Amino acid sequence: MMDMMSSPMMAMLDKEMPGMDMMMMQQCLESCTACEQSCTMCADMCASSGMEDMAKCMAMCMNCADMCHATMRMMMRPSGMDSMVMMKMLETCMMMARACAEECMKHDEMEHMKACAQVCMDCAKACESMMGSMKMMMAE
Amino acid sequence: MMDMMSSPMMAMLDKEMPGMDMMMMQQCLESCTACEQSCTMCADMCASSGMEDMAKCMAMCMNCADMCHATMRMMMRPSGMDSMVMMKMLETCMMMARACAEECMKHDEMEHMKACAQVCMDCAKACESMMGSMKMMMAE
Amino acid sequence: MMDMMSSPMMAMLDKEMPGMDMMMMQQCLESCTACEQSCTMCADMCASSGMEDMAKCMAMCMNCADMCHATMRMMMRPSGMDSMVMMKMLETCMMMARACAEECMKHDEMEHMKACAQVCMDCAKACESMMGSMKMMMAE
Amino acid sequence: MMDMMSSPMMAMLDKEMPGMDMMMMQQCLESCTACEQSCTMCADMCASSGMEDMAKCMAMCMNCADMCHATMRMMMRPSGMDSMVMMKMLETCMMMARACAEECMKHDEMEHMKACAQVCMDCAKACESMMGSMKMMMAE
Repeated sequence: MMDMMSSPMMAMLDKEMPGMDMMMMQQCLESCTACEQSCTMCADMCASSGMEDMAKCMAMCMNCADMCHATMRMMMRPSGMDSMVMMKMLETCMMMARACAEECMKHDEMEHMKACAQVCMDCAKACESMMGSMKMMMAE
Repeated sequence: MMDMMSSPMMAMLDKEMPGMDMMMMQQCLESCTACEQSCTMCADMCASSGMEDMAKCMAMCMNCADMCHATMRMMMRPSGMDSMVMMKMLETCMMMARACAEECMKHDEMEHMKACAQVCMDCAKACESMMGSMKMMMAE
Repeated sequence: MMDMMSSPMMAMLDKEMPGMDMMMMQQCLESCTACEQSCTMCADMCASSGMEDMAKCMAMCMNCADMCHATMRMMMRPSGMDSMVMMKMLETCMMMARACAEECMKHDEMEHMKACAQVCMDCAKACESMMGSMKMMMAE
Repeated sequence: MMDMMSSPMMAMLDKEMPGMDMMMMQQCLESCTACEQSCTMCADMCASSGMEDMAKCMAMCMNCADMCHATMRMMMRPSGMDSMVMMKMLETCMMMARACAEECMKHDEMEHMKACAQVCMDCAKACESMMGSMKMMMAE
Protein backbone atom coordinates (compact mmCIF):
# COMPACT_ATOMS: atom_id res chain seq x y z
CA MET A 1 0.00 0.00 0.00
CA MET A 2 1.24 3.46 -0.89
CA ASP A 3 2.67 5.14 2.19
CA MET A 4 0.51 8.21 1.93
CA MET A 5 2.28 10.40 4.46
CA SER A 6 5.49 10.28 2.47
CA SER A 7 3.54 10.59 -0.77
CA PRO A 8 3.45 13.94 -2.58
CA MET A 9 -0.36 13.98 -2.23
CA MET A 10 -0.39 13.75 1.55
CA ALA A 11 2.46 16.25 1.87
CA MET A 12 0.38 18.71 -0.11
CA LEU A 13 -2.69 18.05 1.95
CA ASP A 14 -0.55 19.11 4.93
CA LYS A 15 -0.07 22.59 3.45
CA GLU A 16 -3.80 23.00 2.89
CA MET A 17 -4.91 22.26 6.43
CA PRO A 18 -2.67 24.29 8.73
CA GLY A 19 -3.19 23.45 12.39
CA MET A 20 -4.53 19.95 11.64
CA ASP A 21 -2.47 17.12 13.15
CA MET A 22 -1.74 15.41 9.86
CA MET A 23 -0.19 12.30 11.40
CA MET A 24 -3.43 11.73 13.30
CA MET A 25 -5.59 12.45 10.26
CA GLN A 26 -3.61 10.02 8.17
CA GLN A 27 -3.99 7.39 10.89
CA CYS A 28 -7.74 7.98 10.90
CA LEU A 29 -7.98 7.89 7.11
CA GLU A 30 -6.11 4.58 6.98
CA SER A 31 -8.19 3.09 9.79
CA CYS A 32 -11.40 4.02 7.97
CA THR A 33 -10.06 2.48 4.75
CA ALA A 34 -9.06 -0.74 6.55
CA CYS A 35 -12.45 -0.84 8.27
CA GLU A 36 -14.37 -0.41 5.02
CA GLN A 37 -12.39 -3.26 3.46
CA SER A 38 -12.64 -5.56 6.44
CA CYS A 39 -16.39 -5.00 6.82
CA THR A 40 -17.05 -5.55 3.10
CA MET A 41 -15.20 -8.87 3.22
CA CYS A 42 -16.77 -9.84 6.55
CA ALA A 43 -20.31 -9.30 5.22
CA ASP A 44 -19.51 -11.58 2.30
CA MET A 45 -17.98 -14.26 4.52
CA CYS A 46 -20.95 -14.14 6.90
CA ALA A 47 -23.22 -14.82 3.96
CA SER A 48 -21.18 -17.80 2.81
CA SER A 49 -20.71 -19.24 6.33
CA GLY A 50 -24.02 -21.09 6.10
CA MET A 51 -24.75 -20.04 9.68
CA GLU A 52 -28.19 -18.76 10.61
CA ASP A 53 -28.92 -15.39 12.21
CA MET A 54 -26.16 -13.57 10.37
CA ALA A 55 -28.46 -10.96 8.81
CA LYS A 56 -27.85 -8.32 11.48
CA CYS A 57 -24.10 -8.72 11.33
CA MET A 58 -24.02 -8.54 7.54
CA ALA A 59 -26.19 -5.43 7.43
CA MET A 60 -24.19 -3.68 10.15
CA CYS A 61 -20.95 -4.51 8.37
CA MET A 62 -22.26 -3.02 5.11
CA ASN A 63 -23.52 0.07 6.96
CA CYS A 64 -20.14 0.43 8.63
CA ALA A 65 -18.34 0.06 5.28
CA ASP A 66 -20.51 2.75 3.67
CA MET A 67 -20.08 5.13 6.58
CA CYS A 68 -16.29 4.68 6.80
CA HIS A 69 -16.14 5.41 3.09
CA ALA A 70 -18.06 8.69 3.41
CA THR A 71 -15.89 9.73 6.39
CA MET A 72 -12.72 8.95 4.47
CA ARG A 73 -13.87 10.97 1.45
CA MET A 74 -14.63 13.94 3.69
CA MET A 75 -11.15 13.91 5.21
CA MET A 76 -9.60 14.08 1.77
CA ARG A 77 -11.28 17.35 0.79
CA PRO A 78 -9.57 20.18 2.71
CA SER A 79 -11.37 22.84 0.65
CA GLY A 80 -14.72 21.76 2.05
CA MET A 81 -13.65 21.14 5.64
CA ASP A 82 -16.40 22.25 8.04
CA SER A 83 -15.09 21.48 11.53
CA MET A 84 -18.51 21.07 13.15
CA VAL A 85 -19.76 18.64 10.51
CA MET A 86 -16.45 16.75 10.48
CA MET A 87 -16.59 16.34 14.28
CA LYS A 88 -20.16 15.05 14.10
CA MET A 89 -19.27 12.65 11.30
CA LEU A 90 -16.31 11.28 13.28
CA GLU A 91 -18.59 10.76 16.28
CA THR A 92 -21.16 8.91 14.15
CA CYS A 93 -18.46 6.78 12.54
CA MET A 94 -17.05 5.93 15.99
CA MET A 95 -20.50 4.85 17.23
CA MET A 96 -21.11 2.77 14.10
CA ALA A 97 -17.71 1.04 14.28
CA ARG A 98 -18.24 0.21 17.97
CA ALA A 99 -21.73 -1.17 17.36
CA CYS A 100 -20.39 -3.23 14.45
CA ALA A 101 -17.49 -4.57 16.56
CA GLU A 102 -19.93 -5.63 19.29
CA GLU A 103 -22.10 -7.47 16.80
CA CYS A 104 -19.10 -9.22 15.22
CA MET A 105 -17.82 -10.28 18.67
CA LYS A 106 -21.08 -12.19 19.24
CA HIS A 107 -19.83 -14.60 16.58
CA ASP A 108 -16.15 -14.65 17.58
CA GLU A 109 -15.98 -18.41 17.17
CA MET A 110 -15.43 -17.52 13.51
CA GLU A 111 -11.92 -16.23 12.94
CA HIS A 112 -12.95 -13.59 10.38
CA MET A 113 -15.50 -12.11 12.79
CA LYS A 114 -12.90 -11.70 15.52
CA ALA A 115 -10.50 -10.10 13.05
CA CYS A 116 -13.17 -7.72 11.74
CA ALA A 117 -14.20 -6.71 15.27
CA GLN A 118 -10.57 -5.72 15.96
CA VAL A 119 -10.33 -3.61 12.81
CA CYS A 120 -13.63 -1.89 13.76
CA MET A 121 -12.35 -1.14 17.29
CA ASP A 122 -9.14 0.32 15.83
CA CYS A 123 -11.24 2.53 13.55
CA ALA A 124 -13.38 3.72 16.48
CA LYS A 125 -10.23 4.63 18.42
CA ALA A 126 -8.71 6.49 15.49
CA CYS A 127 -11.92 8.51 15.05
CA GLU A 128 -11.93 9.32 18.77
CA SER A 129 -8.30 10.45 18.69
CA MET A 130 -8.93 12.69 15.70
CA MET A 131 -11.97 14.19 17.42
CA GLY A 132 -9.80 14.98 20.47
CA SER A 133 -7.17 16.57 18.28
CA MET A 134 -9.75 18.66 16.42
CA LYS A 135 -11.34 19.82 19.68
CA MET A 136 -7.99 21.15 20.88
CA MET A 137 -7.38 22.82 17.53
CA MET A 138 -10.80 24.50 17.65
CA ALA A 139 -10.28 25.68 21.24
CA GLU A 140 -7.04 27.48 20.37
CA MET B 1 -38.69 7.48 -11.18
CA MET B 2 -40.05 4.30 -9.67
CA ASP B 3 -42.69 5.08 -7.07
CA MET B 4 -41.04 3.11 -4.29
CA MET B 5 -43.89 3.17 -1.79
CA SER B 6 -46.15 1.36 -4.17
CA SER B 7 -43.34 -0.91 -5.24
CA PRO B 8 -43.18 -4.48 -3.91
CA MET B 9 -39.74 -3.75 -2.40
CA MET B 10 -40.92 -0.85 -0.25
CA ALA B 11 -44.05 -2.71 0.79
CA MET B 12 -41.84 -5.52 2.05
CA LEU B 13 -39.55 -3.15 3.88
CA ASP B 14 -42.68 -2.04 5.72
CA LYS B 15 -43.17 -5.50 7.18
CA GLU B 16 -39.58 -5.65 8.39
CA MET B 17 -39.59 -2.43 10.36
CA PRO B 18 -42.74 -2.49 12.49
CA GLY B 19 -43.31 0.79 14.29
CA MET B 20 -41.32 2.82 11.77
CA ASP B 21 -43.31 5.53 9.97
CA MET B 22 -42.66 4.19 6.48
CA MET B 23 -44.14 7.19 4.67
CA MET B 24 -41.67 9.41 6.48
CA MET B 25 -38.78 7.07 5.88
CA GLN B 26 -39.54 6.90 2.18
CA GLN B 27 -39.71 10.70 2.08
CA CYS B 28 -36.31 10.86 3.75
CA LEU B 29 -34.84 8.22 1.46
CA GLU B 30 -36.04 10.10 -1.63
CA SER B 31 -34.81 13.44 -0.30
CA CYS B 32 -31.34 11.97 0.32
CA THR B 33 -31.31 10.48 -3.19
CA ALA B 34 -32.36 13.80 -4.75
CA CYS B 35 -29.75 15.62 -2.66
CA GLU B 36 -26.95 13.28 -3.69
CA GLN B 37 -27.87 13.78 -7.35
CA SER B 38 -28.27 17.54 -7.12
CA CYS B 39 -24.98 17.98 -5.24
CA THR B 40 -23.07 15.77 -7.69
CA MET B 41 -24.34 17.83 -10.63
CA CYS B 42 -23.83 21.11 -8.78
CA ALA B 43 -20.16 20.30 -8.02
CA ASP B 44 -19.62 19.62 -11.71
CA MET B 45 -21.38 22.82 -12.80
CA CYS B 46 -19.41 24.90 -10.28
CA ALA B 47 -16.22 23.57 -11.81
CA SER B 48 -17.30 24.46 -15.33
CA SER B 49 -18.68 27.90 -14.40
CA GLY B 50 -15.26 29.49 -14.80
CA MET B 51 -15.92 31.46 -11.60
CA GLU B 52 -13.21 31.76 -8.96
CA ASP B 53 -13.56 30.76 -5.32
CA MET B 54 -15.79 27.79 -6.03
CA ALA B 55 -13.51 25.25 -4.35
CA LYS B 56 -15.34 25.28 -1.01
CA CYS B 57 -18.74 24.89 -2.64
CA MET B 58 -17.60 22.02 -4.84
CA ALA B 59 -15.99 20.16 -1.95
CA MET B 60 -19.01 20.66 0.31
CA CYS B 61 -21.33 19.43 -2.45
CA MET B 62 -19.25 16.28 -2.92
CA ASN B 63 -19.14 15.71 0.86
CA CYS B 64 -22.90 16.17 1.01
CA ALA B 65 -23.41 13.73 -1.88
CA ASP B 66 -21.24 11.07 -0.21
CA MET B 67 -22.97 11.49 3.15
CA CYS B 68 -26.48 11.40 1.69
CA HIS B 69 -25.51 8.20 -0.09
CA ALA B 70 -24.32 6.50 3.11
CA THR B 71 -27.47 7.63 4.95
CA MET B 72 -29.69 6.30 2.18
CA ARG B 73 -27.94 2.92 2.17
CA MET B 74 -28.38 2.64 5.93
CA MET B 75 -32.13 3.25 5.68
CA MET B 76 -32.47 0.41 3.19
CA ARG B 77 -31.06 -2.26 5.53
CA PRO B 78 -33.71 -3.03 8.17
CA SER B 79 -31.74 -6.05 9.42
CA GLY B 80 -28.92 -3.83 10.60
CA MET B 81 -31.00 -0.98 11.98
CA ASP B 82 -29.40 0.43 15.15
CA SER B 83 -31.66 3.27 16.29
CA MET B 84 -28.96 5.24 18.11
CA VAL B 85 -26.55 5.15 15.16
CA MET B 86 -29.35 5.92 12.68
CA MET B 87 -30.40 8.96 14.75
CA LYS B 88 -26.83 10.23 14.89
CA MET B 89 -26.38 9.69 11.16
CA LEU B 90 -29.59 11.62 10.40
CA GLU B 91 -28.38 14.47 12.61
CA THR B 92 -25.02 14.56 10.82
CA CYS B 93 -26.69 14.44 7.41
CA MET B 94 -29.01 17.30 8.43
CA MET B 95 -26.03 19.44 9.55
CA MET B 96 -24.14 18.67 6.35
CA ALA B 97 -27.10 19.47 4.09
CA ARG B 98 -27.70 22.78 5.90
CA ALA B 99 -24.03 23.78 5.69
CA CYS B 100 -24.03 22.88 1.98
CA ALA B 101 -27.23 24.88 1.37
CA GLU B 102 -25.71 27.94 3.06
CA GLU B 103 -22.59 27.70 0.93
CA CYS B 104 -24.60 27.31 -2.28
CA MET B 105 -26.76 30.32 -1.37
CA LYS B 106 -23.63 32.52 -1.33
CA HIS B 107 -23.57 32.03 -5.10
CA ASP B 108 -27.32 32.23 -5.75
CA GLU B 109 -26.80 34.47 -8.76
CA MET B 110 -26.23 31.14 -10.53
CA GLU B 111 -29.49 29.32 -11.10
CA HIS B 112 -28.07 25.83 -10.42
CA MET B 113 -26.73 27.00 -7.04
CA LYS B 114 -30.10 28.28 -5.94
CA ALA B 115 -31.78 25.06 -7.07
CA CYS B 116 -29.20 22.91 -5.29
CA ALA B 117 -29.56 24.92 -2.05
CA GLN B 118 -33.31 24.22 -2.13
CA VAL B 119 -32.81 20.46 -2.60
CA CYS B 120 -30.31 20.48 0.30
CA MET B 121 -32.77 22.32 2.58
CA ASP B 122 -35.49 19.81 1.69
CA CYS B 123 -33.12 16.98 2.58
CA ALA B 124 -32.26 18.60 5.93
CA LYS B 125 -35.96 18.93 6.74
CA ALA B 126 -36.70 15.33 5.78
CA CYS B 127 -33.84 14.13 8.05
CA GLU B 128 -35.19 16.26 10.89
CA SER B 129 -38.73 14.89 10.46
CA MET B 130 -37.48 11.33 10.45
CA MET B 131 -35.43 12.00 13.59
CA GLY B 132 -38.57 13.34 15.29
CA SER B 133 -40.55 10.30 14.23
CA MET B 134 -37.84 7.92 15.46
CA LYS B 135 -37.59 9.73 18.82
CA MET B 136 -41.32 9.20 19.39
CA MET B 137 -41.05 5.56 18.37
CA MET B 138 -38.13 5.00 20.75
CA ALA B 139 -39.97 6.73 23.64
CA GLU B 140 -42.94 4.40 23.35
CA MET C 1 -39.35 11.53 -6.12
CA MET C 2 -38.22 14.79 -7.69
CA ASP C 3 -39.03 14.81 -11.37
CA MET C 4 -35.54 15.56 -12.52
CA MET C 5 -36.29 16.34 -16.15
CA SER C 6 -38.49 19.26 -15.16
CA SER C 7 -36.04 20.27 -12.44
CA PRO C 8 -33.73 23.22 -13.01
CA MET C 9 -30.73 20.94 -12.50
CA MET C 10 -31.64 18.54 -15.30
CA ALA C 11 -32.58 21.39 -17.63
CA MET C 12 -29.12 22.83 -17.11
CA LEU C 13 -27.45 19.48 -17.68
CA ASP C 14 -29.20 19.52 -21.06
CA LYS C 15 -27.34 22.68 -22.09
CA GLU C 16 -24.00 21.18 -21.13
CA MET C 17 -24.30 18.01 -23.19
CA PRO C 18 -25.43 19.08 -26.65
CA GLY C 19 -26.23 16.12 -28.88
CA MET C 20 -26.97 13.80 -25.99
CA ASP C 21 -30.52 12.41 -25.89
CA MET C 22 -31.37 13.80 -22.47
CA MET C 23 -34.66 11.93 -22.15
CA MET C 24 -32.79 8.67 -22.62
CA MET C 25 -30.03 9.69 -20.23
CA GLN C 26 -32.53 10.61 -17.56
CA GLN C 27 -34.26 7.27 -18.05
CA CYS C 28 -30.93 5.49 -17.62
CA LEU C 29 -30.00 7.56 -14.57
CA GLU C 30 -33.31 6.78 -12.90
CA SER C 31 -33.08 3.09 -13.77
CA CYS C 32 -29.60 2.90 -12.23
CA THR C 33 -30.85 4.67 -9.09
CA ALA C 34 -33.83 2.31 -8.78
CA CYS C 35 -31.55 -0.67 -9.35
CA GLU C 36 -29.08 0.43 -6.67
CA GLN C 37 -31.93 0.82 -4.19
CA SER C 38 -33.66 -2.43 -5.08
CA CYS C 39 -30.41 -4.43 -4.94
CA THR C 40 -29.41 -2.91 -1.57
CA MET C 41 -32.77 -3.87 -0.08
CA CYS C 42 -32.77 -7.28 -1.77
CA ALA C 43 -29.35 -8.16 -0.29
CA ASP C 44 -30.65 -7.29 3.16
CA MET C 45 -33.84 -9.30 2.69
CA CYS C 46 -31.89 -12.31 1.39
CA ALA C 47 -29.84 -12.24 4.57
CA SER C 48 -32.90 -12.14 6.79
CA SER C 49 -34.82 -14.79 4.81
CA GLY C 50 -33.18 -17.59 6.79
CA MET C 51 -32.76 -19.50 3.54
CA GLU C 52 -29.47 -21.23 2.77
CA ASP C 53 -27.35 -20.65 -0.31
CA MET C 54 -28.14 -16.96 -0.55
CA ALA C 55 -24.50 -15.82 -0.39
CA LYS C 56 -24.07 -15.53 -4.16
CA CYS C 57 -27.29 -13.58 -4.59
CA MET C 58 -26.44 -11.16 -1.78
CA ALA C 59 -22.93 -10.53 -3.08
CA MET C 60 -24.13 -10.02 -6.66
CA CYS C 61 -26.82 -7.61 -5.46
CA MET C 62 -24.24 -5.55 -3.54
CA ASN C 63 -21.90 -5.58 -6.55
CA CYS C 64 -24.76 -4.47 -8.77
CA ALA C 65 -25.69 -1.68 -6.32
CA ASP C 66 -22.10 -0.39 -6.21
CA MET C 67 -21.73 -0.49 -9.97
CA CYS C 68 -25.06 1.23 -10.67
CA HIS C 69 -24.00 3.95 -8.25
CA ALA C 70 -20.69 4.57 -10.04
CA THR C 71 -22.48 4.62 -13.43
CA MET C 72 -25.05 7.10 -12.14
CA ARG C 73 -22.36 9.42 -10.76
CA MET C 74 -20.55 9.37 -14.10
CA MET C 75 -23.69 10.40 -15.98
CA MET C 76 -24.10 13.42 -13.73
CA ARG C 77 -20.72 14.95 -14.57
CA PRO C 78 -20.92 16.41 -18.09
CA SER C 79 -17.54 18.15 -17.66
CA GLY C 80 -15.76 14.81 -17.42
CA MET C 81 -17.71 12.94 -20.07
CA ASP C 82 -15.42 10.60 -22.03
CA SER C 83 -17.64 8.83 -24.55
CA MET C 84 -15.45 5.72 -24.86
CA VAL C 85 -15.26 5.18 -21.09
CA MET C 86 -18.96 5.95 -20.66
CA MET C 87 -19.88 3.38 -23.33
CA LYS C 88 -17.70 0.74 -21.68
CA MET C 89 -19.17 1.50 -18.27
CA LEU C 90 -22.73 1.19 -19.61
CA GLU C 91 -21.81 -2.15 -21.17
CA THR C 92 -20.36 -3.40 -17.87
CA CYS C 93 -23.36 -2.18 -15.93
CA MET C 94 -25.70 -3.91 -18.38
CA MET C 95 -23.80 -7.21 -17.99
CA MET C 96 -23.80 -6.90 -14.20
CA ALA C 97 -27.54 -6.10 -14.02
CA ARG C 98 -28.37 -9.07 -16.29
CA ALA C 99 -26.21 -11.46 -14.25
CA CYS C 100 -27.83 -10.18 -11.06
CA ALA C 101 -31.34 -10.58 -12.52
CA GLU C 102 -30.56 -14.18 -13.50
CA GLU C 103 -29.33 -14.98 -10.00
CA CYS C 104 -32.38 -13.38 -8.38
CA MET C 105 -34.71 -15.33 -10.69
CA LYS C 106 -33.30 -18.59 -9.30
CA HIS C 107 -35.09 -17.70 -6.07
CA ASP C 108 -38.26 -16.25 -7.59
CA GLU C 109 -40.44 -18.09 -5.09
CA MET C 110 -39.60 -15.08 -2.89
CA GLU C 111 -41.57 -12.02 -3.96
CA HIS C 112 -38.73 -9.56 -3.30
CA MET C 113 -36.38 -11.58 -5.52
CA LYS C 114 -38.79 -11.51 -8.44
CA ALA C 115 -39.31 -7.77 -7.99
CA CYS C 116 -35.55 -7.11 -7.81
CA ALA C 117 -34.90 -9.19 -10.93
CA GLN C 118 -37.41 -7.03 -12.81
CA VAL C 119 -35.74 -3.78 -11.68
CA CYS C 120 -32.35 -5.19 -12.75
CA MET C 121 -33.69 -6.14 -16.19
CA ASP C 122 -35.14 -2.64 -16.60
CA CYS C 123 -31.75 -1.18 -15.72
CA ALA C 124 -29.98 -3.43 -18.23
CA LYS C 125 -32.39 -2.31 -20.94
CA ALA C 126 -31.95 1.38 -20.08
CA CYS C 127 -28.15 1.00 -20.28
CA GLU C 128 -28.47 -0.75 -23.65
CA SER C 129 -30.75 2.00 -25.02
CA MET C 130 -28.36 4.69 -23.89
CA MET C 131 -25.44 2.85 -25.49
CA GLY C 132 -27.39 2.73 -28.77
CA SER C 133 -28.15 6.41 -28.56
CA MET C 134 -24.51 7.28 -27.82
CA LYS C 135 -23.28 5.13 -30.70
CA MET C 136 -25.50 7.05 -33.12
CA MET C 137 -24.35 10.35 -31.65
CA MET C 138 -20.69 9.36 -32.01
CA ALA C 139 -21.19 8.19 -35.61
CA GLU C 140 -22.60 11.55 -36.70
CA MET D 1 -1.77 0.87 6.33
CA MET D 2 -2.78 -2.61 7.39
CA ASP D 3 -0.79 -5.17 5.43
CA MET D 4 -3.81 -7.01 4.13
CA MET D 5 -2.03 -10.05 2.72
CA SER D 6 -0.71 -10.99 6.13
CA SER D 7 -4.03 -10.08 7.72
CA PRO D 8 -6.43 -12.83 8.75
CA MET D 9 -9.08 -11.37 6.41
CA MET D 10 -6.95 -11.63 3.28
CA ALA D 11 -5.71 -15.08 4.23
CA MET D 12 -9.33 -16.21 4.46
CA LEU D 13 -10.19 -14.61 1.13
CA ASP D 14 -7.45 -16.83 -0.31
CA LYS D 15 -9.33 -19.97 0.74
CA GLU D 16 -12.53 -18.75 -0.87
CA MET D 17 -11.14 -18.06 -4.31
CA PRO D 18 -9.10 -21.13 -5.28
CA GLY D 19 -7.18 -20.61 -8.50
CA MET D 20 -7.10 -16.83 -8.19
CA ASP D 21 -3.60 -15.33 -7.95
CA MET D 22 -4.15 -13.66 -4.59
CA MET D 23 -0.90 -11.69 -4.65
CA MET D 24 -2.02 -10.08 -7.89
CA MET D 25 -5.53 -9.45 -6.63
CA GLN D 26 -4.20 -7.78 -3.51
CA GLN D 27 -1.93 -5.63 -5.66
CA CYS D 28 -4.92 -4.60 -7.76
CA LEU D 29 -7.10 -3.95 -4.72
CA GLU D 30 -4.44 -1.72 -3.18
CA SER D 31 -3.83 0.12 -6.44
CA CYS D 32 -7.55 0.85 -6.79
CA THR D 33 -7.68 2.10 -3.19
CA ALA D 34 -4.65 4.35 -3.72
CA CYS D 35 -6.16 5.63 -6.98
CA GLU D 36 -9.50 6.46 -5.37
CA GLN D 37 -7.72 8.41 -2.63
CA SER D 38 -5.34 10.21 -4.95
CA CYS D 39 -8.12 11.20 -7.37
CA THR D 40 -10.38 12.44 -4.55
CA MET D 41 -7.59 14.67 -3.22
CA CYS D 42 -6.55 15.76 -6.72
CA ALA D 43 -10.09 16.90 -7.57
CA ASP D 44 -10.14 19.00 -4.41
CA MET D 45 -6.72 20.51 -5.10
CA CYS D 46 -7.66 21.32 -8.71
CA ALA D 47 -10.64 23.24 -7.40
CA SER D 48 -8.52 25.24 -4.97
CA SER D 49 -5.71 25.90 -7.45
CA GLY D 50 -7.47 28.96 -8.82
CA MET D 51 -6.52 27.85 -12.32
CA GLU D 52 -9.07 27.99 -15.12
CA ASP D 53 -10.13 25.04 -17.26
CA MET D 54 -9.83 22.50 -14.49
CA ALA D 55 -13.45 21.31 -14.76
CA LYS D 56 -12.66 18.34 -17.00
CA CYS D 57 -9.81 17.17 -14.80
CA MET D 58 -11.87 17.45 -11.61
CA ALA D 59 -14.81 15.55 -13.10
CA MET D 60 -12.59 12.80 -14.52
CA CYS D 61 -10.83 12.44 -11.17
CA MET D 62 -14.16 12.05 -9.36
CA ASN D 63 -15.36 9.54 -11.99
CA CYS D 64 -12.11 7.61 -11.60
CA ALA D 65 -12.46 7.62 -7.78
CA ASP D 66 -16.04 6.31 -7.96
CA MET D 67 -15.14 3.61 -10.45
CA CYS D 68 -12.06 2.44 -8.55
CA HIS D 69 -14.25 2.18 -5.46
CA ALA D 70 -16.83 -0.02 -7.19
CA THR D 71 -14.06 -2.23 -8.64
CA MET D 72 -12.45 -2.60 -5.22
CA ARG D 73 -15.75 -3.58 -3.59
CA MET D 74 -16.34 -6.21 -6.25
CA MET D 75 -12.94 -7.82 -5.63
CA MET D 76 -13.75 -8.16 -1.93
CA ARG D 77 -16.85 -10.30 -2.47
CA PRO D 78 -15.71 -13.80 -3.49
CA SER D 79 -19.26 -15.18 -3.08
CA GLY D 80 -20.50 -12.99 -5.91
CA MET D 81 -17.55 -13.34 -8.26
CA ASP D 82 -18.70 -13.52 -11.88
CA SER D 83 -15.55 -13.83 -13.97
CA MET D 84 -17.00 -12.26 -17.12
CA VAL D 85 -18.35 -9.20 -15.29
CA MET D 86 -15.16 -8.86 -13.24
CA MET D 87 -13.04 -8.91 -16.41
CA LYS D 88 -15.23 -6.25 -18.04
CA MET D 89 -15.09 -4.10 -14.91
CA LEU D 90 -11.28 -4.33 -14.78
CA GLU D 91 -11.12 -3.32 -18.46
CA THR D 92 -13.40 -0.32 -17.83
CA CYS D 93 -11.41 0.69 -14.76
CA MET D 94 -8.16 0.45 -16.75
CA MET D 95 -9.59 2.69 -19.51
CA MET D 96 -10.86 5.20 -16.97
CA ALA D 97 -7.56 5.35 -15.06
CA ARG D 98 -5.61 5.84 -18.31
CA ALA D 99 -7.93 8.61 -19.50
CA CYS D 100 -7.66 10.29 -16.10
CA ALA D 101 -3.85 10.03 -16.11
CA GLU D 102 -3.72 11.63 -19.57
CA GLU D 103 -5.91 14.51 -18.42
CA CYS D 104 -3.83 15.06 -15.27
CA MET D 105 -0.60 15.06 -17.31
CA LYS D 106 -1.90 18.06 -19.30
CA HIS D 107 -1.41 20.04 -16.10
CA ASP D 108 1.83 18.44 -14.93
CA GLU D 109 3.30 21.80 -14.01
CA MET D 110 1.36 21.24 -10.78
CA GLU D 111 3.09 18.69 -8.58
CA HIS D 112 -0.14 17.06 -7.34
CA MET D 113 -1.31 16.50 -10.92
CA LYS D 114 1.91 14.71 -11.84
CA ALA D 115 1.67 12.58 -8.70
CA CYS D 116 -1.98 11.70 -9.36
CA ALA D 117 -1.24 10.76 -12.98
CA GLN D 118 1.38 8.30 -11.74
CA VAL D 119 -1.02 6.67 -9.25
CA CYS D 120 -3.62 6.36 -12.04
CA MET D 121 -1.10 4.71 -14.38
CA ASP D 122 -0.13 2.25 -11.63
CA CYS D 123 -3.80 1.42 -11.15
CA ALA D 124 -4.30 0.86 -14.89
CA LYS D 125 -1.31 -1.51 -14.93
CA ALA D 126 -2.56 -3.43 -11.89
CA CYS D 127 -5.97 -3.88 -13.55
CA GLU D 128 -4.31 -5.08 -16.75
CA SER D 129 -2.15 -7.60 -14.85
CA MET D 130 -5.15 -8.96 -13.01
CA MET D 131 -7.06 -9.29 -16.28
CA GLY D 132 -4.15 -11.28 -17.72
CA SER D 133 -4.06 -13.52 -14.69
CA MET D 134 -7.82 -14.10 -14.81
CA LYS D 135 -7.70 -14.90 -18.53
CA MET D 136 -5.13 -17.64 -17.90
CA MET D 137 -7.19 -18.99 -14.99
CA MET D 138 -10.34 -19.09 -17.14
CA ALA D 139 -8.50 -20.85 -20.00
CA GLU D 140 -7.35 -23.71 -17.76
